[in-house]
Amino acid sequence: MTRYEQLAQQLREQIRTGVWQEGDKLPSLRETVRRSGLSLMTVLSAYQLLESQGWVRSRPQSGYFVAPAREATRYSFPQQPLQPAETVDINAFIFSVLQAGNNPDCVALGSAFPDPSLFPQHQLSRALIRVARQMHADVTGVTLPPGCADLRRSIAQRYAARGMEISPDEIVITSGALEALNLSLQALTQPGDWVVVESPAFYGALQAIERHHLKAVAVATDPQQGMDLDALAQALQQYPVKACWLMSHCQNPLGGTMPNANKQRLLALLAEHQISLIEDDVYGELYAGLTPPRPAKAWDTQGRVLHCGSFSKTLATGFRIGWVAAGQQAEAIQRLQLMSTLSTSAPMQLALADYLSSHRYDKHLHTLRRTLEQRKHIFYRAIQREFPASIRVYYAEGSYFLWLELPPHCCATRLYRRALKAGITIAPGRMFAAGEQYRHCFRLNASLPWNARSEAAIKQLAALIAEQLALR
Amino acid sequence: MTRYEQLAQQLREQIRTGVWQEGDKLPSLRETVRRSGLSLMTVLSAYQLLESQGWVRSRPQSGYFVAPAREATRYSFPQQPLQPAETVDINAFIFSVLQAGNNPDCVALGSAFPDPSLFPQHQLSRALIRVARQMHADVTGVTLPPGCADLRRSIAQRYAARGMEISPDEIVITSGALEALNLSLQALTQPGDWVVVESPAFYGALQAIERHHLKAVAVATDPQQGMDLDALAQALQQYPVKACWLMSHCQNPLGGTMPNANKQRLLALLAEHQISLIEDDVYGELYAGLTPPRPAKAWDTQGRVLHCGSFSKTLATGFRIGWVAAGQQAEAIQRLQLMSTLSTSAPMQLALADYLSSHRYDKHLHTLRRTLEQRKHIFYRAIQREFPASIRVYYAEGSYFLWLELPPHCCATRLYRRALKAGITIAPGRMFAAGEQYRHCFRLNASLPWNARSEAAIKQLAALIAEQLALR
Repeated sequence: MTRYEQLAQQLREQIRTGVWQEGDKLPSLRETVRRSGLSLMTVLSAYQLLESQGWVRSRPQSGYFVAPAREATRYSFPQQPLQPAETVDINAFIFSVLQAGNNPDCVALGSAFPDPSLFPQHQLSRALIRVARQMHADVTGVTLPPGCADLRRSIAQRYAARGMEISPDEIVITSGALEALNLSLQALTQPGDWVVVESPAFYGALQAIERHHLKAVAVATDPQQGMDLDALAQALQQYPVKACWLMSHCQNPLGGTMPNANKQRLLALLAEHQISLIEDDVYGELYAGLTPPRPAKAWDTQGRVLHCGSFSKTLATGFRIGWVAAGQQAEAIQRLQLMSTLSTSAPMQLALADYLSSHRYDKHLHTLRRTLEQRKHIFYRAIQREFPASIRVYYAEGSYFLWLELPPHCCATRLYRRALKAGITIAPGRMFAAGEQYRHCFRLNASLPWNARSEAAIKQLAALIAEQLALR
Repeated sequence: MTRYEQLAQQLREQIRTGVWQEGDKLPSLRETVRRSGLSLMTVLSAYQLLESQGWVRSRPQSGYFVAPAREATRYSFPQQPLQPAETVDINAFIFSVLQAGNNPDCVALGSAFPDPSLFPQHQLSRALIRVARQMHADVTGVTLPPGCADLRRSIAQRYAARGMEISPDEIVITSGALEALNLSLQALTQPGDWVVVESPAFYGALQAIERHHLKAVAVATDPQQGMDLDALAQALQQYPVKACWLMSHCQNPLGGTMPNANKQRLLALLAEHQISLIEDDVYGELYAGLTPPRPAKAWDTQGRVLHCGSFSKTLATGFRIGWVAAGQQAEAIQRLQLMSTLSTSAPMQLALADYLSSHRYDKHLHTLRRTLEQRKHIFYRAIQREFPASIRVYYAEGSYFLWLELPPHCCATRLYRRALKAGITIAPGRMFAAGEQYRHCFRLNASLPWNARSEAAIKQLAALIAEQLALR
């Protein structure tokens, strides 16, 4: 990252955390030059970048001021009541949405995956070719659960780089994080048990709960603070909860990241009730804020956190390789995997181990984070420009999702159907809860390249939204 | 297959089906030459092959006679009572056996996989390299459920070659047959439901039943006739069964194949009770008898059979690619897969599609069947030579398993533990049922190459068995 980008990021973080609030005048260019020791050109570039991203406005002869908060950095959800749901039944709807998203003729603003052209295709191909050339007949034995030892060691090294001591022995390689999450849930629960999930939540959590005949308590989740811990404490008092499932970083669909202090309080709360945490962290490596986040797992002293990660969102969508650092449950997870899919494919495990040994992953991630951040800014600006002013949009550091809220009378599911006919997918809020409370919301994928096609899609979407608004 | 091998196979089939019984004199060489039009050398070679395999004995000046049935071709299990099991709890035991089998220093007579050196490693590597070279970024979209269209078409073509009309649209690509079987079970049942399984059964069926909180009725299964259909009819009267799970060909662990007439009666019975069949057919392609078998699915007119296949036992163990031809349940299976593993790895699907398009699979299968048959004969003869005479052994056409029965007072689990210490694995009968009725039985993998190591293992095993027999 260049110096001016670093400075811009610092200032964004300060605006996010309220050091500078709407209307505040930022320190003058001259003053910042003096304090920071940076050149005037560098400081000016940083301020211009912030302006282009909509964070600040310049006033001639006066300086730079924090832009009004129509942008949703300070947007916070109303406190929600607990949402117990004896049965969860949204699979059919989600399936139809996912199926629709497979159509390559659609502009995939509803997709959960980053634009795959951002992945290091060539390097992965070469890793796969090296593996294919050396592949011996008896490759399966080394990749059965818990999975390829070299790959597990590489993953453990990445934890170590974040200051976490995770033994390769507690890591199990899985078919993407989705299998890791599902096996974790199975290891911790029996049919009929209660599980805490976020509201709104990744639909995979709701599907897993339906599939395994569990009951869900959805606890309100704020894009800046993460899960409401007071509401969680109340839920744990009221329901015999067996597990808690949440995303600590770049939450899907909101995009927000839970502050470290909250992670610590969360763990204390769960420990008090002897409840395990399924920490879905598939987007953590994409966090673009200043300080790389530490998973809740970092404060887990009892082996109660099952930390699920993946390469699908950062490196290779189609390889289907994820993992869980499963603590106490490592053996249980292996047993469950042996009887459900046996193992993940051997060449894929070996190819990823080969790629990671080249030490190019961090460099790739660095570039990927920057590109995603840039693209998201462009989408965000376009949305501010094109969409009706009554639409709220939440922008979070490090996620490639934007979460949008229509006025309450509007139905994003209807918008989804209309958009689909126009060749555009969105992810309607209905997917992210058992109830109807997000039916006026939707999630946009802002990782696509900005070109005539995506620009036309945003304009078309704006027109469809205007149509919905008029439907009162 | 050479002419003399064909003739030997015909004669074996005739002995198996009782055309020639123990002590019968086979037609003389001269007579067979006259009837068949084959040369005397060819006919003599066939008779000598049968003698070397223990099927016939020559008496000087008299001719060839069917050997006594110490070999188990006519061996049949005693009728067993129905075995309802409210809960199934053998996972822990099976996990420990599978874990032990991963040790490469052991002679893997307990393995469920054929010797991987029999697979066309080089051709698969080349297919994988071709795929890696052409891999484009957006490969995932084409391999999401139901899976790669070319691969599904190739599988449909293989069905067509067996006279079965299966649309590519009802085929779903899965992580090995194991995922196909598990998803099939989930599509058909809810926790608490009853499922019919074989006795003895593939342990994966028992594990799936435990994992999904189902109840099992185990119906006696005969190596020659397959599942006892009278007992099945009785079970369907007595229990509110939701699904029936069986292996129609080269059953694991017995090795036997259900006659076509029985398959038809089976389907009629299930149709009468409106029950779906999960047909586990991972070994069908290895059947070495004269007529290639047709799955029960071939007589399914109502889309009630979920036919599960795999490339893991015939082509590429570590790729983890299987499928289910799911009839009515095709969409339900896709929905379940999307929420449990999302999909199988894209490069693996594409590499298999590439390999199958080369039309080398049938040639490979032909060679594989012959080699497996030869190796099994060698193991079978060695067992007859080395093992105590009180051991019964069942030999089936087309399976690479041998099923052995110790006298009832012996415990094969104890034998397993003793053998493990000596660096040899076996698959104890305890793995194949919820109860204890096969504790004196075990399964041997006869696909290993016959060399000093495997010969020593068989001799060592013989000594350990003698020790067990003496333990009265």
